Amino acid sequence: MASGSTFAHRHILGLEQLSREDISHILATADSFKEISTRSIKKVPTLRGHTIINLFFEPSTRTRLSFEVAAKRMSADTFNISPSTSSTTKGETLADTARNISAMHPDIIIIRHACSGAPLLLSRCVKAAVINAGDGAHEHPSQGLLDLMTVKERRTTLSGLKIALIGDIAHSRVARSDIIGFTRMGSAVHVYGPSTLIPKGIDQLGATLCTSLEEAVRDADVVMTLRIQHERQNDPLLPSLREYARQFGISGRILSLAKPDALVMHPGPVNRGVELPPEVADGPQSVILDQVTNGVAVRMALLYLVMGTS
Amino acid sequence: MASGSTFAHRHILGLEQLSREDISHILATADSFKEISTRSIKKVPTLRGHTIINLFFEPSTRTRLSFEVAAKRMSADTFNISPSTSSTTKGETLADTARNISAMHPDIIIIRHACSGAPLLLSRCVKAAVINAGDGAHEHPSQGLLDLMTVKERRTTLSGLKIALIGDIAHSRVARSDIIGFTRMGSAVHVYGPSTLIPKGIDQLGATLCTSLEEAVRDADVVMTLRIQHERQNDPLLPSLREYARQFGISGRILSLAKPDALVMHPGPVNRGVELPPEVADGPQSVILDQVTNGVAVRMALLYLVMGTS
Amino acid sequence: MASGSTFAHRHILGLEQLSREDISHILATADSFKEISTRSIKKVPTLRGHTIINLFFEPSTRTRLSFEVAAKRMSADTFNISPSTSSTTKGETLADTARNISAMHPDIIIIRHACSGAPLLLSRCVKAAVINAGDGAHEHPSQGLLDLMTVKERRTTLSGLKIALIGDIAHSRVARSDIIGFTRMGSAVHVYGPSTLIPKGIDQLGATLCTSLEEAVRDADVVMTLRIQHERQNDPLLPSLREYARQFGISGRILSLAKPDALVMHPGPVNRGVELPPEVADGPQSVILDQVTNGVAVRMALLYLVMGTS
Repeated sequence: MASGSTFAHRHILGLEQLSREDISHILATADSFKEISTRSIKKVPTLRGHTIINLFFEPSTRTRLSFEVAAKRMSADTFNISPSTSSTTKGETLADTARNISAMHPDIIIIRHACSGAPLLLSRCVKAAVINAGDGAHEHPSQGLLDLMTVKERRTTLSGLKIALIGDIAHSRVARSDIIGFTRMGSAVHVYGPSTLIPKGIDQLGATLCTSLEEAVRDADVVMTLRIQHERQNDPLLPSLREYARQFGISGRILSLAKPDALVMHPGPVNRGVELPPEVADGPQSVILDQVTNGVAVRMALLYLVMGTS
Repeated sequence: MASGSTFAHRHILGLEQLSREDISHILATADSFKEISTRSIKKVPTLRGHTIINLFFEPSTRTRLSFEVAAKRMSADTFNISPSTSSTTKGETLADTARNISAMHPDIIIIRHACSGAPLLLSRCVKAAVINAGDGAHEHPSQGLLDLMTVKERRTTLSGLKIALIGDIAHSRVARSDIIGFTRMGSAVHVYGPSTLIPKGIDQLGATLCTSLEEAVRDADVVMTLRIQHERQNDPLLPSLREYARQFGISGRILSLAKPDALVMHPGPVNRGVELPPEVADGPQSVILDQVTNGVAVRMALLYLVMGTS
Repeated sequence: MASGSTFAHRHILGLEQLSREDISHILATADSFKEISTRSIKKVPTLRGHTIINLFFEPSTRTRLSFEVAAKRMSADTFNISPSTSSTTKGETLADTARNISAMHPDIIIIRHACSGAPLLLSRCVKAAVINAGDGAHEHPSQGLLDLMTVKERRTTLSGLKIALIGDIAHSRVARSDIIGFTRMGSAVHVYGPSTLIPKGIDQLGATLCTSLEEAVRDADVVMTLRIQHERQNDPLLPSLREYARQFGISGRILSLAKPDALVMHPGPVNRGVELPPEVADGPQSVILDQVTNGVAVRMALLYLVMGTS
């Protein structure tokens, strides 16, 4: 188990704030925790008697479950709160909610919120450590870190790789965290998607905008696709799902342009036949379920490391 | 505590798959666990560090609570997930949900789903043990087992009894599990209900269809009534509640046709004055609350036994 | 830790049933538990293996969380149930729900319900200890007790104080519990609010009705404001929020009429700018967050004390 003493971040708000050394330290810690989940007794006493609150303003099954599994495997006490966003639209009210929860002496608050910056605001109102579980279109750092961990496991390095990132870049907090993370670790991120869904200034994040799917995927080490939001199906910015699959889906033919052992990744849940056809989603190059497994390990590491800073 | 080593079932999908010996073994195990719930400290370390997921696609308060109580009394870590069925109507998506949860290394997944066969599908996608907590109109094995346990406690045997099963047989997974369970243990199940709610081929399940309520109840050892779904009140297949009570309710007069010490049972919640008048539901022959108590013990046994097969 | 042996109440239904000695004993116990929540490992084994059910028929985030935090810090196993009120409008059905839960051998049931008297009814149906977490416009005893604890911490005594209680008295269970509690401990409660929201016979509870805000607040030791329900904004009994703030809000000018070190209290969440302007809600006299912190300690004490009576 890596020592928490060299980790200086009280809050995990985004990959933006994490140095290359921080990220390496988190991934090494996650790697050391991964084995716990394969034991018969999947539990270590590390965070016994610690109070961890899942404060999810947006509905979530997978991320909430992953954090809760991570917390309980560290022996923490967990609490789930899902306030309706309607009652907390004003930042002032989020601050009040935060101060009230803080008065019950939690150790860590994990927050998901539709507004970018909500975790930062929270971190200024509470004594607890704050972990961002996704804020608006800003960042989703634990997802970015589990993506990095998954690639590092298979490639041994995160340096000098070509990452193809395909889809709705503009609305994706996963895309932002991945672009920041992979470029910081020394890899190149090539993005492609519907032109209406590529934000201006994407190159300032360090990504390279491609003009075709083929260009993005060619010789890539990793082909990462982003989820198209079903609920945006009538969005005039979006083509139909069928059209999307034809233009932006990763068929076997497209995948064959990447390196022979390129990894296929997706933050889930996959719209089968849209972002990925089943034979690619479930194919030998897919590491989508490794991403989920590593998510628990990364979150155990984050809970552990922020507690080392209290 | 009975040894788990003689129990060969990795999953509990229905009573259909369980032999007479399996059922006896489960009931003996449940009987040995029952006392734990009467202690001041209602907790044994048996499943410490095990991850148990309640995956309920249909709303449920009682069954979910009963499983959660059972799991925590065995010291397991429990997680509740209630995906909206709307987002998982396609079997394909259930499989994806299953594989994703499986990647977090749960030990047991307890599933309730509106579609018959969903637990079977789940069991084929995951490494965890799967327990069916009710699937469509197919089976509800833990309910069937707690019914068997309750009768065995009072009658000492499950052989040679007459069980009257009254109500909406067609839509009831409880009815199916009970018919399979009681007939397998050597008892005779006599069914009666609105003719529109008796499925064809009920005799192939081993039950005897009666032509009157009196015939079904006469000399019965057990009078088991099924819940009429309030939400089906406008169903043309169903008489009005008042009419139902008159024709199919177990009045004191009807009950007097059964054996003098016949047991009155109901899977709950009772529609008072419909399936049972209050004086029968709360009367000396009612074992409805014993069913609830035994439900926790049966579920502790199931959790314990499937873990012995991992 | 105070001994539970001198506490004779199996259920906590309201402050009405608690003597001055009972209240002092609860507050002393809560005071001894408060330190636990400031430890790194916030957990004592006192209620290990005990089953505590949060049965909330009304939505609640804060009170439910506070009870759940209290229970887990005592090492109890907690279970959350939120039945829709629609399915349990009949008292008969609440009784059935109660008996069913009781059959699973819970140690404590914490109930919130829209109907006054629901906790009393529950206590008559179950073997478990019952704690009222708010019933209709009747009582909210743990809130009343945490208010008493907060004042006692700052004033060292609860005797001879003037408490100004401002707002919607008629619909407030907090108001009732506070009036009963503070008067029982020897303080005087002066109430003021919209005349349509002052119930007749308020003086029979022991409170003094004032004819102006100034009269209520003048020389008060405590200025306690009640929350205006947003959802009642179109209620003809209520002035507009702007009008309410002007007539009943505690401005700095109004607060200056109270004793110089008067405490500002509110059960939360505050409608900022309505009951209290931000500078008062967050000002040096505000003890609103102490109320929240003390809520956990009071609830730990209640869980502990009712268990001493089993």
